Amino acid sequence: MKTKLILTTALTLMTMSSFAQTNDERIPAKGFAVYEEKGNFRPYEFTRHAVGDNDIQIEILYAGICHSDLHHVFADWGAEEYPMVPGHEIAGRVVAVGKNVTRFKVGDYAGIGCMVGSCRHCDACEQDMEQYCEEGAIMTYHGIDRYNGNEHTQGGYSDTYVVAEDFAIKIPANAEIEKVAPLLCAGITSYSPIMQAGVKRGDKVGVAGFGGLGHMGVQYAVALGAEVTVFDITDEKREDALRMGAVRYVNVNNPEELKGLDRTFDFILSTIPAKYEPVMYMKMLKLDGQFGIVGLPAFRNMPSLSVADLVFQGSRKVFGSQIGGIKETQEMLDYSVEHGIYPEVEIIKAEGAEIDKAYRNVQDGKVKFRYVIDMKTMK
Amino acid sequence: MKTKLILTTALTLMTMSSFAQTNDERIPAKGFAVYEEKGNFRPYEFTRHAVGDNDIQIEILYAGICHSDLHHVFADWGAEEYPMVPGHEIAGRVVAVGKNVTRFKVGDYAGIGCMVGSCRHCDACEQDMEQYCEEGAIMTYHGIDRYNGNEHTQGGYSDTYVVAEDFAIKIPANAEIEKVAPLLCAGITSYSPIMQAGVKRGDKVGVAGFGGLGHMGVQYAVALGAEVTVFDITDEKREDALRMGAVRYVNVNNPEELKGLDRTFDFILSTIPAKYEPVMYMKMLKLDGQFGIVGLPAFRNMPSLSVADLVFQGSRKVFGSQIGGIKETQEMLDYSVEHGIYPEVEIIKAEGAEIDKAYRNVQDGKVKFRYVIDMKTMK
Repeated sequence: MKTKLILTTALTLMTMSSFAQTNDERIPAKGFAVYEEKGNFRPYEFTRHAVGDNDIQIEILYAGICHSDLHHVFADWGAEEYPMVPGHEIAGRVVAVGKNVTRFKVGDYAGIGCMVGSCRHCDACEQDMEQYCEEGAIMTYHGIDRYNGNEHTQGGYSDTYVVAEDFAIKIPANAEIEKVAPLLCAGITSYSPIMQAGVKRGDKVGVAGFGGLGHMGVQYAVALGAEVTVFDITDEKREDALRMGAVRYVNVNNPEELKGLDRTFDFILSTIPAKYEPVMYMKMLKLDGQFGIVGLPAFRNMPSLSVADLVFQGSRKVFGSQIGGIKETQEMLDYSVEHGIYPEVEIIKAEGAEIDKAYRNVQDGKVKFRYVIDMKTMK
Repeated sequence: MKTKLILTTALTLMTMSSFAQTNDERIPAKGFAVYEEKGNFRPYEFTRHAVGDNDIQIEILYAGICHSDLHHVFADWGAEEYPMVPGHEIAGRVVAVGKNVTRFKVGDYAGIGCMVGSCRHCDACEQDMEQYCEEGAIMTYHGIDRYNGNEHTQGGYSDTYVVAEDFAIKIPANAEIEKVAPLLCAGITSYSPIMQAGVKRGDKVGVAGFGGLGHMGVQYAVALGAEVTVFDITDEKREDALRMGAVRYVNVNNPEELKGLDRTFDFILSTIPAKYEPVMYMKMLKLDGQFGIVGLPAFRNMPSLSVADLVFQGSRKVFGSQIGGIKETQEMLDYSVEHGIYPEVEIIKAEGAEIDKAYRNVQDGKVKFRYVIDMKTMK
């Protein structure tokens, strides 16, 4: 459907104020930002670039709270700019489309994950791995959008987003829309390394760290027919793991539970966001096993593997992985909806104090398993 | 050929004193040992276990000097026991066989690499990867042979070795015998990861560290049809690399030569035995590239890769590798002889001062590319 920019006013599609802009008018947006490192969330008004010919505008319905949002708010990965509106797990509805847009029409569900742009012509982009763009992928927030006037990007804890259609994900109409947002980061980040490792029926798979990413990884590995063991540092999630299809749950703080696991896994996925000993998991791999790492702790707590660790645990392969490309994200989303794989979410209201409280719970490991902000409730 | 223990006296096979033993008589041996950490080499007389029913006795003709011998003599990898006779690159001739031996007969060439035993029944051994034996592979020297009275093993800088036939390598009669010894460690250690990475015609392969292992890796990769780049820290080996078939030589101390190499390699093999930055090579890999590590520096200089290094260079795979199993070592040796792939060797006399001098040259990077001791010259 090739249409001109549509100025939608259909109330059924809009729970926020109507848009009225021409092609070059910036879009007003409001959301919740931290105004300083480790700050609380307070209302924030800003603008986004106008809806270009290849862009769509999304009314944000739900925004997931990812552990990496906390890392950014806490400046765990280096200095940040404030005010910062986090959020790269975005599910919403299309409210406007540029004239060249073909994949979306007004009223469709659409999602945005961790990135909103890339060079589109380097080897990585041509291999559909835009997250490794040689010129740098443009992050959904805390990014600089070099294709839109070096705009400082702000994320999904807000009412609307303008994004190029080729960086938007189609969400099937039959999706459980309130649970979709976390798939765009937690989902793809755990799905992609499982695919890279070639997990198949009967494989013994370990998932280390049973939070937002981990509980998605468990579901994908179980759906693929693997025999899944979950590793975490508490007993509190044992029943959840077994309920999601894991055959074993290991509290790594209990040495007894670790016995007999060396050299037994085909693949282990680490989603651990804190200090840990990667070599312990390397030792649990079969000789042709693989260790996929997606959890990125704070730099001050960054674990490492020495050359000796790698040689002594020779013939096991280790790799890191960042989210996934747009094509693979679409594949993951379609697979998830088709197989009924969703995060377990707790929906919270779009209020600063609610988000602050959710952050404290994520930090304390008290979330099961993902907070999702219902952006429609923003006042 | 099932024979009883043969007490060979054929002078053509023996340049040392005749053996005379029964099944349980220990075998006299002499060689060169260091008597203390970083010591010089001096003559040393000792004994080896008797030739058991499944054993062969080898008259050692040539013994290679491996960089790891220096690491052991210098106690770079932890405390050692002395006197120590190094040497795990051994080429010789069979002078006696036990009654159950089928693969060797007296007069055959035979070789010994880094290990002389393993449990033979664990998953690793059953997968022909005895170097990762769950009960521990028995090292050719600085090992404890639990199947032979906990004998402290002594290596190949000596006149004879007694080894189980299933840990001996058959050396074809047409091999260039004076060059074979280094294949048993340097050869297999570089061959195995190249095979694990699936290097094939047209692949872009990097070999980092152009010494004993590296110059073998270059030859195998070239033989497989890869386009090979060599990395080292000096200009002195440039011509050698090109002569061996590399298309490019990079002195990593010259920043100009490193330009334009990021994301260009399918596989990089690190044989570097000293401090370096593995992440520099990770960055040179294509997105589906692999980084194989076989060089093991001293513990005080051990490089590492952080979880952040792995995630930021996501989708590239890293693995360490230790030598190779006996089956793969035999395959490598047959392949090498068939393709005329040998180390470049400098033959030295079996004299303490000669070995000491060779060690100094290896340490100073002055060897091209492998010293081999002609054990027949021992007085």
